[in-house]
Amino acid sequence: MPELRQNLATKEWYVIATDRAKRPEDFIGRPPERPTESRDPRCAFCSGNEHMTPPETMRITRGDAWQVRVFANKYPAFSACGSTERKVAGLYRSMKGVGVHEVIVETPKHNATVATMPLADVSDIVRAYRERYRAAIADERVALVIIFENHGPSAGSSLGHPHSQLIGTPLVPTHIRYRSEEARVYYDDVGKCVFCQMMDFERRDGERMVWESDLYVAFTPYASGAPYEVWILPKRHASSFGDTSDEEVVGFAKALKTVLAKVYHGLKDPDYNFVIRSTPKDQQSAPGFHWYVKFMPKLAQQAGFELGTGMYVNTTLPEHNAKFLRHVKLPEE
Amino acid sequence: MPELRQNLATKEWYVIATDRAKRPEDFIGRPPERPTESRDPRCAFCSGNEHMTPPETMRITRGDAWQVRVFANKYPAFSACGSTERKVAGLYRSMKGVGVHEVIVETPKHNATVATMPLADVSDIVRAYRERYRAAIADERVALVIIFENHGPSAGSSLGHPHSQLIGTPLVPTHIRYRSEEARVYYDDVGKCVFCQMMDFERRDGERMVWESDLYVAFTPYASGAPYEVWILPKRHASSFGDTSDEEVVGFAKALKTVLAKVYHGLKDPDYNFVIRSTPKDQQSAPGFHWYVKFMPKLAQQAGFELGTGMYVNTTLPEHNAKFLRHVKLPEE
Repeated sequence: MPELRQNLATKEWYVIATDRAKRPEDFIGRPPERPTESRDPRCAFCSGNEHMTPPETMRITRGDAWQVRVFANKYPAFSACGSTERKVAGLYRSMKGVGVHEVIVETPKHNATVATMPLADVSDIVRAYRERYRAAIADERVALVIIFENHGPSAGSSLGHPHSQLIGTPLVPTHIRYRSEEARVYYDDVGKCVFCQMMDFERRDGERMVWESDLYVAFTPYASGAPYEVWILPKRHASSFGDTSDEEVVGFAKALKTVLAKVYHGLKDPDYNFVIRSTPKDQQSAPGFHWYVKFMPKLAQQAGFELGTGMYVNTTLPEHNAKFLRHVKLPEE
Repeated sequence: MPELRQNLATKEWYVIATDRAKRPEDFIGRPPERPTESRDPRCAFCSGNEHMTPPETMRITRGDAWQVRVFANKYPAFSACGSTERKVAGLYRSMKGVGVHEVIVETPKHNATVATMPLADVSDIVRAYRERYRAAIADERVALVIIFENHGPSAGSSLGHPHSQLIGTPLVPTHIRYRSEEARVYYDDVGKCVFCQMMDFERRDGERMVWESDLYVAFTPYASGAPYEVWILPKRHASSFGDTSDEEVVGFAKALKTVLAKVYHGLKDPDYNFVIRSTPKDQQSAPGFHWYVKFMPKLAQQAGFELGTGMYVNTTLPEHNAKFLRHVKLPEE
C-alpha cells in the first residue's frame, strides 16, 4: 500500500510506494563507464593541459603540483558580463544571464573519485568550495550560490574527469523562494529552525540515520524523493555554507566522503548528483534556514508524472535505505 | 550570451544559453530501442494477453477487437483503498496514497506509436483520456487528475507497448498549487486568463508557432525548459480537460498527432514525455486557468543544477525549435 509523506520543510508531498520496491542489488550491474587511466592526454582537466582551460580563479597546491583548480566554465549558463536589468519583450520579461559559473577540478587524477580519495584531498575540494562560495556571494549581482557535482553520464556529466560546478544566479529561483518562505513560516510558528528540529528528531529516532560525527549528521529524509537520497547537515545551526569554519571544512569533507563511500561500495558506484543548498543572499540573516547537502544517486528515471506534478515517486523506503547504508563497511584508510 | 526568461504563468525563470546550442542533427543517432514486431507474446498489453492485466475499467472496440483498453496500474503509485486522513508520525505528517492510477493501452499493436497512427486511432485514445478523466475527477478523494505518456526508456517507460497513464492525486501538489496561485493573481491583476493572453500573443507574433487549427494551437513557450518543448492549448478558454467536447476530442487528437509526428520525423523518434495539465478540482470554476499539454522530448539530461534550484537550463532557442518544427513536412495519409 503506497503512502504519501509530506516534507515538513517544503510542504511538498512524496509518494512512498513500497510495493514497487527495489532491493539494493537491483540497482547494480550497469556497465562501467568510469575513466580507468589516471591521465587522459585529451582531457582539459588533466595536469599538463592547463592551457586548455580558461584562466584560474583559484588553485590549491601541494608542493609544485596543483591539487584543485577553479576557473570559469567555458560554456557558462551564467556569465560575468552585464546587468540584472529586466527587459520587456512583448508580453514577456527577460534579463541577461549574468552571474557566476565556475568549474572546480577536484583532483589532477583523471580516474579518482571523492568516495575513494584521501580525506586531505576531499578537504582541499571543500576548502575550494567555501572560498569560491564566498567570492561568488560577494558579487553584488548574485542572489544565490549553489555548488553541485554531476557524477557519470546519466547524472548529466559529459566529462569523465572529477569536477564540481559552482553557479551564482542573479535572482532567487521560485522553487527556492517558496522553500525559504515555508521555512520562514515554520520559524514564525514554532520559533525554531525546521532543519534543526528534523536533525534532532532523526538523531533521537535513529531509523533513518546514516552516519554522524561531532559536527555533521547524515540521514535519509522522511519524505525522500528518490532511492538512497541522503541529506548531510551541520549540527551547528548555520544558514550559509560560507560560514563554515576551518574545522568544519575538514568535518564536512569527512561527512561527504563517508556518504559517498558508503554509496560507492554499497551500490557499486552509481551515477549521482549532490548539491549544496545554502540560503539566498537576502536571507542569510534569517534564523529559520539551515544549509545542507542533498545527495541523490541516479537510480530512478524521472518521468511524466514528476514532470506534470513536481511530485516524485520513490520506489523504496527511506528507513530501509538508511539501514542498508549504515551497514556498509568502509575499507580502512 | 545566455539569457534568463520568466515564465509569465508561473514566475519561474529559465536560462536560454544559446552558446551551448545544439542543432537538430546533434540529437539524432541514438540506437533504436523501439519494438519492431506488431505483437510480443510476452507483453501483457498485447491482444491475446488480456488475462495478464487487472480488470478493465474501459474498453473501446472496433468490431470484435478492442482498440483501447484501460485498467488499474498493477503497481500503483496511488491506490483505490483508504481515506485521505492525515496521520502524525513523530515530527512528520503522512497519509495513505489513495487515489487513482490507471494504464491506458493505446493500441493492440505492440510497435505502433501515436505519431504514425491513423487519426481515428488517436481520437479513440483521447476519448478514453476524457472518459477516464471524468471518472477520476468525480472520485471524492481525488483533488487533481493528470494524464501522461512516457515514450521510451530514457523518458521513464519500462514497457515498449504504447500506453499512457492517468493519475488522480488526493491532494494538490505544491508545485501545482503555486502555479495555480500565480495564474489566479494574474487574473486578478489583468482580468484575463494568462494562457489565453499568451496564446493570442503567440498567434500574432508567429515566431514560436508550431501549428494551429480552428480549435487548437501548438507553440514553443517563450521560456521553454528544454529543447523542443511544445505546448498545445485549446483555443476556447477551458480550465478542465474534462469539458472537452466530442468535436474537440477529434481536434485535440489531430493536434497531438501532428506535434508528435513533426518530432518523430524531424528529430528521428526521440524518447519523450507529454502531460495533460488540467486544473485542480477545487479550481475548475476559476476563470484564470487553462488546460494544456506540455510536451518534452528527452533530449537533455537533468543534472545537479536543476535538482538544486528547480531552474532548467535549455541549450536551444525556442524560436529556432519552432521554425524547425514548422518546416517538418509530414507524410500524406
